[in-house]
Amino acid sequence: MTIKVGIIGAGVMGSDHARTIAAAVSGASVSAVADIDAERAQSLAADVGAAAFNDPLALIAASEVDAVLVASHDSTHTELVLACLAAGKPVLCEKPLALDLDDCASILVAEQATGTRLVSVGFSRRFDPANVALKDALIAGQIGRPLLAHAVHRNVSNSPDGDSASTVLNSAIHECDQTPWLFDHPVTEVSWHAPASTSLLPQRQDPQLILLRTADGALTTVEVFVNAVYGYDVRLEVVGETGTLSLGEPALVIRNSDLARSADYPADWRPRYAAAYRAEAQAWVDSVASGKYHPALASAADGYRATAVAHAVIASMDSDGAVTTVKYPHADLLAAVEGAHR
Amino acid sequence: MTIKVGIIGAGVMGSDHARTIAAAVSGASVSAVADIDAERAQSLAADVGAAAFNDPLALIAASEVDAVLVASHDSTHTELVLACLAAGKPVLCEKPLALDLDDCASILVAEQATGTRLVSVGFSRRFDPANVALKDALIAGQIGRPLLAHAVHRNVSNSPDGDSASTVLNSAIHECDQTPWLFDHPVTEVSWHAPASTSLLPQRQDPQLILLRTADGALTTVEVFVNAVYGYDVRLEVVGETGTLSLGEPALVIRNSDLARSADYPADWRPRYAAAYRAEAQAWVDSVASGKYHPALASAADGYRATAVAHAVIASMDSDGAVTTVKYPHADLLAAVEGAHR
Amino acid sequence: MTIKVGIIGAGVMGSDHARTIAAAVSGASVSAVADIDAERAQSLAADVGAAAFNDPLALIAASEVDAVLVASHDSTHTELVLACLAAGKPVLCEKPLALDLDDCASILVAEQATGTRLVSVGFSRRFDPANVALKDALIAGQIGRPLLAHAVHRNVSNSPDGDSASTVLNSAIHECDQTPWLFDHPVTEVSWHAPASTSLLPQRQDPQLILLRTADGALTTVEVFVNAVYGYDVRLEVVGETGTLSLGEPALVIRNSDLARSADYPADWRPRYAAAYRAEAQAWVDSVASGKYHPALASAADGYRATAVAHAVIASMDSDGAVTTVKYPHADLLAAVEGAHR
Amino acid sequence: MTIKVGIIGAGVMGSDHARTIAAAVSGASVSAVADIDAERAQSLAADVGAAAFNDPLALIAASEVDAVLVASHDSTHTELVLACLAAGKPVLCEKPLALDLDDCASILVAEQATGTRLVSVGFSRRFDPANVALKDALIAGQIGRPLLAHAVHRNVSNSPDGDSASTVLNSAIHECDQTPWLFDHPVTEVSWHAPASTSLLPQRQDPQLILLRTADGALTTVEVFVNAVYGYDVRLEVVGETGTLSLGEPALVIRNSDLARSADYPADWRPRYAAAYRAEAQAWVDSVASGKYHPALASAADGYRATAVAHAVIASMDSDGAVTTVKYPHADLLAAVEGAHR
Repeated sequence: MTIKVGIIGAGVMGSDHARTIAAAVSGASVSAVADIDAERAQSLAADVGAAAFNDPLALIAASEVDAVLVASHDSTHTELVLACLAAGKPVLCEKPLALDLDDCASILVAEQATGTRLVSVGFSRRFDPANVALKDALIAGQIGRPLLAHAVHRNVSNSPDGDSASTVLNSAIHECDQTPWLFDHPVTEVSWHAPASTSLLPQRQDPQLILLRTADGALTTVEVFVNAVYGYDVRLEVVGETGTLSLGEPALVIRNSDLARSADYPADWRPRYAAAYRAEAQAWVDSVASGKYHPALASAADGYRATAVAHAVIASMDSDGAVTTVKYPHADLLAAVEGAHR
Repeated sequence: MTIKVGIIGAGVMGSDHARTIAAAVSGASVSAVADIDAERAQSLAADVGAAAFNDPLALIAASEVDAVLVASHDSTHTELVLACLAAGKPVLCEKPLALDLDDCASILVAEQATGTRLVSVGFSRRFDPANVALKDALIAGQIGRPLLAHAVHRNVSNSPDGDSASTVLNSAIHECDQTPWLFDHPVTEVSWHAPASTSLLPQRQDPQLILLRTADGALTTVEVFVNAVYGYDVRLEVVGETGTLSLGEPALVIRNSDLARSADYPADWRPRYAAAYRAEAQAWVDSVASGKYHPALASAADGYRATAVAHAVIASMDSDGAVTTVKYPHADLLAAVEGAHR
Repeated sequence: MTIKVGIIGAGVMGSDHARTIAAAVSGASVSAVADIDAERAQSLAADVGAAAFNDPLALIAASEVDAVLVASHDSTHTELVLACLAAGKPVLCEKPLALDLDDCASILVAEQATGTRLVSVGFSRRFDPANVALKDALIAGQIGRPLLAHAVHRNVSNSPDGDSASTVLNSAIHECDQTPWLFDHPVTEVSWHAPASTSLLPQRQDPQLILLRTADGALTTVEVFVNAVYGYDVRLEVVGETGTLSLGEPALVIRNSDLARSADYPADWRPRYAAAYRAEAQAWVDSVASGKYHPALASAADGYRATAVAHAVIASMDSDGAVTTVKYPHADLLAAVEGAHR
Repeated sequence: MTIKVGIIGAGVMGSDHARTIAAAVSGASVSAVADIDAERAQSLAADVGAAAFNDPLALIAASEVDAVLVASHDSTHTELVLACLAAGKPVLCEKPLALDLDDCASILVAEQATGTRLVSVGFSRRFDPANVALKDALIAGQIGRPLLAHAVHRNVSNSPDGDSASTVLNSAIHECDQTPWLFDHPVTEVSWHAPASTSLLPQRQDPQLILLRTADGALTTVEVFVNAVYGYDVRLEVVGETGTLSLGEPALVIRNSDLARSADYPADWRPRYAAAYRAEAQAWVDSVASGKYHPALASAADGYRATAVAHAVIASMDSDGAVTTVKYPHADLLAAVEGAHR
């Protein structure tokens, strides 16, 4: 059985997902591509042998679409995921699930009403082989009880349009999910701190330093620097009672030249996470085909929680870095949905 | 279109290939598995949703098999590849193509007779992302003209059955193909040298040191050590006029514990080359589907040449390390086949 | 001219300094050793060819002592440094200069009264070749304006006697000096944060996370973990507008064995900072001999400021991690002393 | 007691040694400097507070010279070392001890006639902390019996004056000493091999590949590349029955910038071996002062053997890379001298 996937959004991420699913995922094809820019939709559709749509709702409704991947603008996620749920079709939504907690909750309610699990969220780090190996080593007890973690998340450059809050909702959102995934405990309180800010992205505070405390007491420092210039670089070290675990620094090739030994950084996240995107897409397609969801695939509840953490961080940012409790106002709903999925 | 692949050989490599093609390659399924051990065939077939065969020739003939992957004992390669050619079916044969040059030549002749390209050889390093990046950097001129290379190839342990020649034909055969692939020139002369030999594999000289000279004058040192105990470790450095390029040392996770910073080695080649095996299988399936062969896929002629280099190394071994010219006795045939494929 | 050095304190640090000065510093000898434990004093004195003293004040007064190195218990520093100043003898005092700001100030006043510079403080990281190279690269503009730094300071184990404040005054004191030295701006405000605490040193919060803001706006995160078990490990990364600089991870030898590639950590700081201790001692001896102080040698004013930062960190610890302004109550004195020394 | 050292040769190495001994060695001063270029001698002498000499023989005879360091042109070594022996003064001679075996032997005879040990040779790698740690780990049995080693020795650039033999006598001479020092067995046979040669130093074969077999059967590959352009880079890996040991890649600082993570190479050997030169000079001065020679200091016999190995390599170069037995024609003399020194 081949799962026919419809892709909504033919931008950087949508194109990357479409090409991966079309060329490197077993049991899947890309049958439809939608974008508000018709030309962009047609160009990507032609590349991957799919039909082009202008209207994403038409794509969702189309009979040649078994499952939907949403990679359009963040502000469209809620409406499109709800439409997938209304159509009874599985959907993988790029992060964040929604920018607003009530929107996240409306998705949870709608999914609950379908009586089955249909929503996944694109927290792709859960499929990064290095992240997975680090978590496995942690669970295996290689460093004892975890006490502390240091995360670093640096992009080469970023749009001048965003503000400091958008850094949290678009970039640090990964660490808002990764941290509870890694420690298997929710984030309970956060604080936000401002280093000196780069002059190269004057519209925002950049870099930002965020502290996340999980329910096990562990404290995670997160440096998120969206205009770091030098390369795309993501790091993680977990410090336990008897040792530490860090992600290796990926380097396919080491070059000796010009009085230096060097390894190249990618200019963006795609080379760094190519294996993770493929594994995530494969896990999603397999889950759709079998009806049994891969345990690492982020659920709507995971998406809700990451947005909740991000909002707490922004609240701290807006109150001079005060330590801020993370609020999960739809706790009963989360518990009900997760109970049903187990 | 889905390419239905038949796997011959349900041992370590055949199982690995079968699972990769069944679970992680776009446009392919595994439809049949054959092994001389019926139970092993059935077990793997069940895993990947395929039919089990006892007789590999029956598998080759079966209508539900579009293309064949040969991963059975080296000594069976020639017969099975010839059967695929007789059936007009594309075949990916694990290395070495054949242990004997005349056998390699008979395959070339039979393929030539089909009027098309049907044979590929599993020199998977050509699809290793790090090897590919190194070659790309070399071609891009990052280190000037290449002068010298150092290759290291170490296995944890090896069968006491093999002799010193089998090390060359089974292990160093990778470097016999990798070296001309990297420099884009054939190997012209070789010599073989014996370090002190480990007491842990008394049946063979181990490690061995091999020098390979390519037609561009570059000299490659190859250490092949099949019972190196400490881990599976493959390295390559190319030295050019203005710099060097090496494979990065892969490490998903760095562990700090017990007064050391450490990165694990795999116990065998499968984790190290998992991405290469997937990419190779995908490229082969795509080539079969399109009829256009991926340029990195090793051809029967490449397989012939690697075996020719291996025989020259064994000849040097048998003559006290004398510098030995590599003989390609079927040069006209190689030229004819390669002309036809271009 | 040979400077005859008297060593007060024959414990771990005093012995290390004594042996370095006796065996590996040009223009110096160790002429006297004092310790409250007479046997320990005699043993070290015999090792380095010096006279043994019971009374440190007698050592300071002795005619065969040109200059004094104080490596006795922290609580004795003030009295001994003041005695050196009273005797008009140059003194290198191990960190911290004093545990109390008023004591530090009394030293500054006494030194000012001598009309010359006589006091140096053993902030040895200023002489670590890697730290020096990092600072040089920063000053050379290799990463643009510094915005943020991450410091990590981990010991294998620590005495159960200390409390959480002692971690700051004895261990984090290095980062309290290193940070303003690196950025060439004083620390203006700090905050203190508690990760989950190890069960292996129940008397203290361990690890601790400290944020230091310097007058240039840069924010430095300091993890100090005094019972980290796995090894002695100190790290530093400075993040600038266009890149970052980190200390290399020192590794004399890489070992491949037992399915891992590994590099040993030292069990304590002595191997890590052996070159720094030698360079510091040489710089101090040269300064004493020439009367011209090496610019990297920490002065009494530097010692005062580090203690002031440490007290602000402890104040934050005592007030639930509140952001706390660093107070330098003797600012006029600091300015006067530093003006005089220039 | 201060050893007053006279330095012969105020070039790169002589100046480096003079500054190290004057500024960073305990128990030594530089009292005299000689060079055939009077201005150069005076300039260095002024720097280190020494008297300048034109005539090296006058320096050797001078009463203010207790011990002599010879760092003048290779061709002068024999005469100067013999003059030191005639004067009964200890001498540390830069490598090679002499270019000719008979000259080496004449030094051995003259030293023997003094009835004591007076000659040391500047094989500074024996004092490199990483080399020492590697040898210690080897002796401790961390990798079992050594079977094979890979040495790499690359310089940025080299004089067009030299020929291929001079590469061996001036550069590879280090590995001619290091190899038997490491394995504690003499080199018994060698062979020489030519990679493609760089166009940037047309006067010589460059790089060269040398195989050295020691009496324990271990085989060492040596790549010596004197015009490697990219940086000064020396490496060593020893392969044993159960693991390997390599020198760490020194890096004080890691820089992230311009889409790369990089560590600088030095342009020449001085930064790489600064600690080794200091330790060697300290060991020599201590040996002279005590009359007990540090076991790592190379003796005249070690210097003889390294020259003998170099001559065998050149003989192989002159006979198409033939495997060549190393000849030690003054074996009785070597045995007698070494017996006397024990």
